[in-house]
Amino acid sequence: MSPYYFDYNATTPLAPEVLREMEPYLTRHFGNPSSFYQLGRAANRALRQARKLTASLLGAADDNEIIFTSGGTESNNTAIRSALSISGKKQILTSAVEHSSVRNVAGQLRKEGYQITEIGVDAQGRLNLEQLREAVSDQTAVISLMMANNETGVIFPVEEAGKIAKEKGIFFHVDAVQAAGKIPLHLKDSAVDFLSVSAHKFYGPKGVGVLYVKKGTGFSPLISGGSQERGRRAGTENVPGIVGLGAASEWIQKELREEPARLKKLQVEFETAIRSRVSGVTVSGERADRLPNTSHLRWEGIEAETLLIALDQREIYASSGSACMSGSRRPSHVLKAMGCTDEAAASAVRFSFGKYTTEKEIQFLAEELSRLVTHLRSGNGKSHAHFSERFAKEGVL
Amino acid sequence: MSPYYFDYNATTPLAPEVLREMEPYLTRHFGNPSSFYQLGRAANRALRQARKLTASLLGAADDNEIIFTSGGTESNNTAIRSALSISGKKQILTSAVEHSSVRNVAGQLRKEGYQITEIGVDAQGRLNLEQLREAVSDQTAVISLMMANNETGVIFPVEEAGKIAKEKGIFFHVDAVQAAGKIPLHLKDSAVDFLSVSAHKFYGPKGVGVLYVKKGTGFSPLISGGSQERGRRAGTENVPGIVGLGAASEWIQKELREEPARLKKLQVEFETAIRSRVSGVTVSGERADRLPNTSHLRWEGIEAETLLIALDQREIYASSGSACMSGSRRPSHVLKAMGCTDEAAASAVRFSFGKYTTEKEIQFLAEELSRLVTHLRSGNGKSHAHFSERFAKEGVL
Repeated sequence: MSPYYFDYNATTPLAPEVLREMEPYLTRHFGNPSSFYQLGRAANRALRQARKLTASLLGAADDNEIIFTSGGTESNNTAIRSALSISGKKQILTSAVEHSSVRNVAGQLRKEGYQITEIGVDAQGRLNLEQLREAVSDQTAVISLMMANNETGVIFPVEEAGKIAKEKGIFFHVDAVQAAGKIPLHLKDSAVDFLSVSAHKFYGPKGVGVLYVKKGTGFSPLISGGSQERGRRAGTENVPGIVGLGAASEWIQKELREEPARLKKLQVEFETAIRSRVSGVTVSGERADRLPNTSHLRWEGIEAETLLIALDQREIYASSGSACMSGSRRPSHVLKAMGCTDEAAASAVRFSFGKYTTEKEIQFLAEELSRLVTHLRSGNGKSHAHFSERFAKEGVL
Repeated sequence: MSPYYFDYNATTPLAPEVLREMEPYLTRHFGNPSSFYQLGRAANRALRQARKLTASLLGAADDNEIIFTSGGTESNNTAIRSALSISGKKQILTSAVEHSSVRNVAGQLRKEGYQITEIGVDAQGRLNLEQLREAVSDQTAVISLMMANNETGVIFPVEEAGKIAKEKGIFFHVDAVQAAGKIPLHLKDSAVDFLSVSAHKFYGPKGVGVLYVKKGTGFSPLISGGSQERGRRAGTENVPGIVGLGAASEWIQKELREEPARLKKLQVEFETAIRSRVSGVTVSGERADRLPNTSHLRWEGIEAETLLIALDQREIYASSGSACMSGSRRPSHVLKAMGCTDEAAASAVRFSFGKYTTEKEIQFLAEELSRLVTHLRSGNGKSHAHFSERFAKEGVL
């Protein structure tokens, strides 16, 4: 792991405990889980065990509510399209601050003739529940909301939103990619019909995720073919990845007992330390319910890109928001929806912490950051034009 | 690896050389390739390198013709739906012997109002090119054909089929999942618009594949979201998996110089050895162009399931056909299309060989198999009912 990694919302390292569980399936247990001989059955048993562990993390009622997918984005695409296909209705209610994997599906669906209604948030990033209630119509197929925002960490009131959906007999989809493994989930007896999760956000491998589909909920597959996942997601299973997802689920479920409180303490320490050193800092969603691991800061008179380059040079890794939005030069739609000016949005840097973040690292980060911000504000920062040039040269953009 | 694995068409072990390349990306190089700091850029460089190696295996003209997917099934779904979406036309031409990942997409599309025309094969499994030519209409959106059959190993004349497609301005999709890594591919200057590949069929990891899309060909994504894969396939990239695909591509491309000839020799030896010992054996597609690694045998008076159980008890692993069709009690649609009776179809066992198969193993297999077949024919075999009961008990079915 890198010495100063503060971008756990972008991705997490694979926990060594998780990799250890995956290893036999990367070597001797290589059978196709659909094969009926011993080697195949061993792989099949591993899938069942992983399904059980994942169902437990989600607090699902039944292991078969878990469909393994290639990740959160596929899960989001599948859930929304499935809800539309089953309901036959034309309207999607979602928020103005969703991740691109919901936002761009919605954009695509708009082109296909569907009506997309975006529910707003306040300056703290909190969902306007009243607006949601009023937007529901008899043409609403699905309400699709994130559980926790990937940029700000603000947590949405999914229980209340779910009640609105259930009162009206509307499908309810929750994008829990940033929430799973950070806050406990209890899907049994909830109003959630579909829920998306990605393993690499909680110390599991990249390339594997979950679509939870509540028992009895109608379903239409996105990917057809073989009868894997009870005909709901075709394709030879990513056995090592799924085993890793299961192991990560089991591991993080134990961590959820103590780790959120530890992270919350680091978050408070970090934000307090920054404020005691520099002025003109705003913590996004400070008065909202927030993930304990995310500190999203806006700095007066600072361009985030310049600050991030300076941090990168010191091997301190943070980001301006969503990794899935990088390459885009537009201000974050999340911050715009919260009423930020373009200038304020362009100053935002997200620090997200995790299992391997120590108090010492947090103190170091606060010191370096304060020093850099003061330095940049005194007019010694390079223009952010350097940033684009540099990555264009390396062929990233 | 298992001592007697003869089911390389179902899946292959991960080559140790490939796993070695993946390991840094399962541990310290865990960055999100969309992140702009050093850790992310290292992951991004690895993707570019893997893209280059994969493009080379396919003989592609441009690295950007490679889209990384979660596997062959996703690639097949994406290619066919993309061709329909771009062309706006209503007919799909495919063969009667496709893999379920094309066959069931076609079945789903039929329900959605598309016209599916299946081109037949002869008793050797060879495509009826004349029928294909005649079936083309001005409503044909796409011709979708496999390069090599997963059950019999019979190779289709994709070059000729491609000419028909190009003469008529029709999209041409090739499912090369069973061909890639077994026979050379030269996509540059070919008529192929879309081509599907799966890494785990040639010693790469499960859960990763390729959709080749020829430069200039229209494209509509199946999975929307972030801007990964130039907006053609959203979702955080499965970095270790993609690195493994690249490493497997590089490794198998070298192997393609000598390995097909070695496998061809084993295939001939095996089939000759069987025939010298038992009568009433038919080699499917014997007079057709076939993959060098596949021997698909039909046995008079034998039920494949009974034979496979007896083999499994000796830790000899083979299959009755497609792993993706297992669980189905219906006779293989491939063999039915070749004109086999239900009884003949139910007697078929596929042996597929690979890099780690030795001549000694082949000799052992031929001996064991001959002994077992003779034994079963003498009336000492158990009913295949035991098979279903046994797996139902283990919860596989």
